[in-house]
Amino acid sequence: MNKSRIARVIENMRAQGLDQILVTSTPSVYYLSGRWINPGERMLALYLNSNGDTALFANKLFVQTGGDVDLIEHDDTEDPIPMLASRVKKGKLGIDKTWPSHFTIRLMEALPGITPVLGSAPVDDARMCKDAEEIALMREASWMNDEATRRTLGEIVEGMTEKELEACYLKNAKAVGGQGPSFTPISCFGPNCAEPHHDNDETRLKKGDSIILDVGLLHRHYCSDMTRTAFLGCATDEQKKVYDLCRRANEAGRAAVRPGVELCEFDRAARKVIEDAGYGEHFFHRTGHGIGLDEHEPPDNSQTSRVVAKPGMCFSVEPGIYLPGQFGVRVEDLVVVTEDGCETLNQLGRELLIV
Amino acid sequence: MNKSRIARVIENMRAQGLDQILVTSTPSVYYLSGRWINPGERMLALYLNSNGDTALFANKLFVQTGGDVDLIEHDDTEDPIPMLASRVKKGKLGIDKTWPSHFTIRLMEALPGITPVLGSAPVDDARMCKDAEEIALMREASWMNDEATRRTLGEIVEGMTEKELEACYLKNAKAVGGQGPSFTPISCFGPNCAEPHHDNDETRLKKGDSIILDVGLLHRHYCSDMTRTAFLGCATDEQKKVYDLCRRANEAGRAAVRPGVELCEFDRAARKVIEDAGYGEHFFHRTGHGIGLDEHEPPDNSQTSRVVAKPGMCFSVEPGIYLPGQFGVRVEDLVVVTEDGCETLNQLGRELLIV
Repeated sequence: MNKSRIARVIENMRAQGLDQILVTSTPSVYYLSGRWINPGERMLALYLNSNGDTALFANKLFVQTGGDVDLIEHDDTEDPIPMLASRVKKGKLGIDKTWPSHFTIRLMEALPGITPVLGSAPVDDARMCKDAEEIALMREASWMNDEATRRTLGEIVEGMTEKELEACYLKNAKAVGGQGPSFTPISCFGPNCAEPHHDNDETRLKKGDSIILDVGLLHRHYCSDMTRTAFLGCATDEQKKVYDLCRRANEAGRAAVRPGVELCEFDRAARKVIEDAGYGEHFFHRTGHGIGLDEHEPPDNSQTSRVVAKPGMCFSVEPGIYLPGQFGVRVEDLVVVTEDGCETLNQLGRELLIV
Repeated sequence: MNKSRIARVIENMRAQGLDQILVTSTPSVYYLSGRWINPGERMLALYLNSNGDTALFANKLFVQTGGDVDLIEHDDTEDPIPMLASRVKKGKLGIDKTWPSHFTIRLMEALPGITPVLGSAPVDDARMCKDAEEIALMREASWMNDEATRRTLGEIVEGMTEKELEACYLKNAKAVGGQGPSFTPISCFGPNCAEPHHDNDETRLKKGDSIILDVGLLHRHYCSDMTRTAFLGCATDEQKKVYDLCRRANEAGRAAVRPGVELCEFDRAARKVIEDAGYGEHFFHRTGHGIGLDEHEPPDNSQTSRVVAKPGMCFSVEPGIYLPGQFGVRVEDLVVVTEDGCETLNQLGRELLIV
């Protein structure tokens, strides 16, 4: 068990008026216990009481020894709900947001004295500010992603399909030691780049196409995520102009990052570059999202995000411009907030790339 | 909307004393509405009242037109919970088992007069007995899986790794028109075959190894699932004997299937062949699982399953024998219960295969 992280979570529980919570998501249980357990349909719950009582409820298939935690095991012939009900106290009980409802409902039936409330915030808030060990892993993950992306950009050839470029990235992500992709890669060409979440298909790459490569890999459970845009053979003046705007918006968004400022200010800094050039309506998504053990997690880096930046927060800065029927550009990097600004985790260059 | 399926679900709701339910899982919503919606973090709920009131709550990203259902849309700036709360009646509300708890909790807070109870059974029970349209799709999916497996068995060569055989199946599943795998393929060799759920690794195939190929593909959202076991180059007398037992257990399990009988009888028929030969302790999992839009769904085909077989039920028969440190064998087919017995969906042969 990670005692310092648990202490931070208990501090958050007290501040939020929660005496007891059930932590059930795989990344959150990992964050606190160091155990990565994908329970599938089975029950997984880490009980935390602000008085210090802690117990891990898990199926024997996944956990053999408790180590420094009180482990309460069950097997497939046993019902874990009564075990949980005998440990939980009556009153308010914080429940992790994604726990399947049947567990919550059966626990309420087994222990009518509890009132389930949303209970993810104490852990989510702690996870939002990465500690030194986590920042080191996020940095390594992004450096590996830089290298996998660099290799992939070098293998682009005219006539290849979007799916083939995806396979090329996956091969390179594996070759650099990635555990797997952190999300389904986006590798799209020309007009397909105008959809920010295009599903890669059999479209073939041709001269003059924009090429968006939005990719990430997993490294020891931590996610990376970066986007680079290139052009095949040549770029028109408008493509060059749009590319330059996105690159400058990305720079401005990152340059604005410092502790004590609301994240909406970083979105504004990036967005302003694009709006001032008259392309505002073509940048219609948020500037970024938090990232860590989950590919998307708090904090939100959007126009409405009132979260105040603190050292250790990690999120993407990914402005884009999408011109329907023509092409699209996005330039994305991950940053981590430092004491006086931010560190950009990605080191791969951002100059206009014609391959 | 599929009126006959909804009528069956409402009949089940009445029999189970449920006036209203929220159907939220992607396959269950598809089963009733014909819409395949993967909502990710967003809210998806089909409200069904036994009085006939029906409404689909979905994000605008996924559903554009209601068609013949009352569509209540929201976008990312709107909270769908109050919309749902204004439609749901006070009292008992059946909740689909996997709905993320934060929706259930927030709905309870928005509408304190409701009592959430487990509410998946009316739809799960309807889905358990496939209708003619579904049986046709299950049959096609299994035939495609037969062909992909046949091709894969033909490409086995000494020295290939488990991961390479997996990639070979995935290529063939795509080539025959599969939408994708219905689960992570198991393709393992020799002693690794003694673990029923081995994670494929870099183990290389050598002469005398058993080869388990447990694979399935998706076809128009329906799952297939089959296991064949082969041997490379030669098989020992014990390997031949164990293979023959599994093949005969599979045959006996399928031969026992007919409507009106509890599924535990089918497990018993398969298990008896293996137990009578003295290998009972090496067959330590259930004989099979239901399958359809989900890879694992009711009915359970195990020693304790008191479900009574009815026409349209679809499940696997997959006895196996696992000898630690040596080898393992499993022979799996899908069956659908008919009026007087069953149809085996897989057509690929089961004779001893030495490749």
